[in-house]
Amino acid sequence: MKIYLDCYPCFLRQALEAARIGKADEQQQRLVLDRALETLRLIEPWRTLPEITDRIHRIVRRTVGNSDPYRAAKETSTCHALALYPRLKTLVAEACDPLDTAVRVSIAGNIIDLAFNLKYALWETVGRTLSQPFAVDDRQAFREALTRAKRVLYLADNAGETVLDRVLIETLHMPVMYAVKGGPILNDATLEDALAAGVDGAAEIVSTGSDAPGTVLRSCSQEFRQLYKEADLVIAKGQANYETLSANGVRTFFLLQAKCSILARDAGVPVGSLVLKQGQRRA
Amino acid sequence: MKIYLDCYPCFLRQALEAARIGKADEQQQRLVLDRALETLRLIEPWRTLPEITDRIHRIVRRTVGNSDPYRAAKETSTCHALALYPRLKTLVAEACDPLDTAVRVSIAGNIIDLAFNLKYALWETVGRTLSQPFAVDDRQAFREALTRAKRVLYLADNAGETVLDRVLIETLHMPVMYAVKGGPILNDATLEDALAAGVDGAAEIVSTGSDAPGTVLRSCSQEFRQLYKEADLVIAKGQANYETLSANGVRTFFLLQAKCSILARDAGVPVGSLVLKQGQRRA
Repeated sequence: MKIYLDCYPCFLRQALEAARIGKADEQQQRLVLDRALETLRLIEPWRTLPEITDRIHRIVRRTVGNSDPYRAAKETSTCHALALYPRLKTLVAEACDPLDTAVRVSIAGNIIDLAFNLKYALWETVGRTLSQPFAVDDRQAFREALTRAKRVLYLADNAGETVLDRVLIETLHMPVMYAVKGGPILNDATLEDALAAGVDGAAEIVSTGSDAPGTVLRSCSQEFRQLYKEADLVIAKGQANYETLSANGVRTFFLLQAKCSILARDAGVPVGSLVLKQGQRRA
Repeated sequence: MKIYLDCYPCFLRQALEAARIGKADEQQQRLVLDRALETLRLIEPWRTLPEITDRIHRIVRRTVGNSDPYRAAKETSTCHALALYPRLKTLVAEACDPLDTAVRVSIAGNIIDLAFNLKYALWETVGRTLSQPFAVDDRQAFREALTRAKRVLYLADNAGETVLDRVLIETLHMPVMYAVKGGPILNDATLEDALAAGVDGAAEIVSTGSDAPGTVLRSCSQEFRQLYKEADLVIAKGQANYETLSANGVRTFFLLQAKCSILARDAGVPVGSLVLKQGQRRA
């Protein structure tokens, strides 16, 4: 997805929020803001949204001297989600269509995106997504692809959301590789977060080898690129994966909530929509 | 009021919105954004909020080649407010305390601030303000000052709000000078807007001689500065007047709604609060 002009104010807001989450003092916050202004002024207009997000958060980490400003926030998200895990399992177990419910649960987890909402109400979001119609609905194609696939490559998004991903993975009853970031970026899930969510009991956890938002293949490890190339079905969670991979072939299915008005407009759906979208054929 | 770091994303948003209201094309919008980024990067941290707002909107006017981007929006605001005028007059006429109701009506009009809300529901806001408690309540001091004053200098804020100011002015039953901006800035009222609202039937309209937001005395005309110096009671509408004049003496009363979270925090009140605040003694 291209950068829209409306993203610029949002980048500045994110820079400040991230600095404060990383416990920056007033002087560091001003420095983060100055450096973000300079970066935004010089940015080439053809850069993608996750690339700029990456640069902004590198500025924050370097300026604040904190390699993982979201560490405590990520642990809190995981802890809150784990408290709901038994209830989520019951929801799926008692559902007429367990796969459909587990897909909705996993998409509900995508509300835990600290780039857009510092506060979220996870259980209320689960309730909403259980009955909300899909704004983009490739569920049938997804079901068919699942029956044909031998295993799934599952691209994680945020810490905490990992717990709700685990519920979906446990419902798939097939081998899953769960790919997490190679290092901290925003509140994206890393190995540590996937382990804290107990995903290792349900899937093989792998690293993308990259700490860029989304999945920018050229910045991923050789091993991950090979896994990605060989995967016959990819589940990609969240906006950043959609922004970086959406034109990367029909074997990829994007599961997300449209949380930002710009992405929502780009995708032609209202804010708050549930999206299960099959990727487009490669150009 | 000093500039807070949180104001920077808001300045960028305002720059883009103003450019679009002025019918800027995509290229002009990008140019506005680039110039706003450059200005924000170089700004001295001791500048006041209205000063930066002024610079941002000068960039927009110059880049878009439109000396009054908000002209049509201002006319619409005035037109909508005039449609409510008979109902507002009835509200005041039938009130147990007409002055109190007229003050609330005037503060309700302060919702028409296109820097913060491109959309607003004026009649609903009037309904809310009629029963809402004041978060800062210097109404008693205001009443006493009115009984002592011979005439009032009334500093206008936005076009459309002018109609609701007229309702208050007509309730004061004393000579009022209504001061409007000397040129277009945002949707602030100018002579044209005050006349369209019919304020000339109730007050003598004067110009501040300045097109800066708020009332920056050093940028006002010599004539206005003299009027201001001699005024025994000043009614100052809206956030920008509060930001520029709040430490300018006890004869000034600020009537506003706290619409932005930063101003609200600075004033120690929740967003959406009604404020009638007496100015502080000069330092």
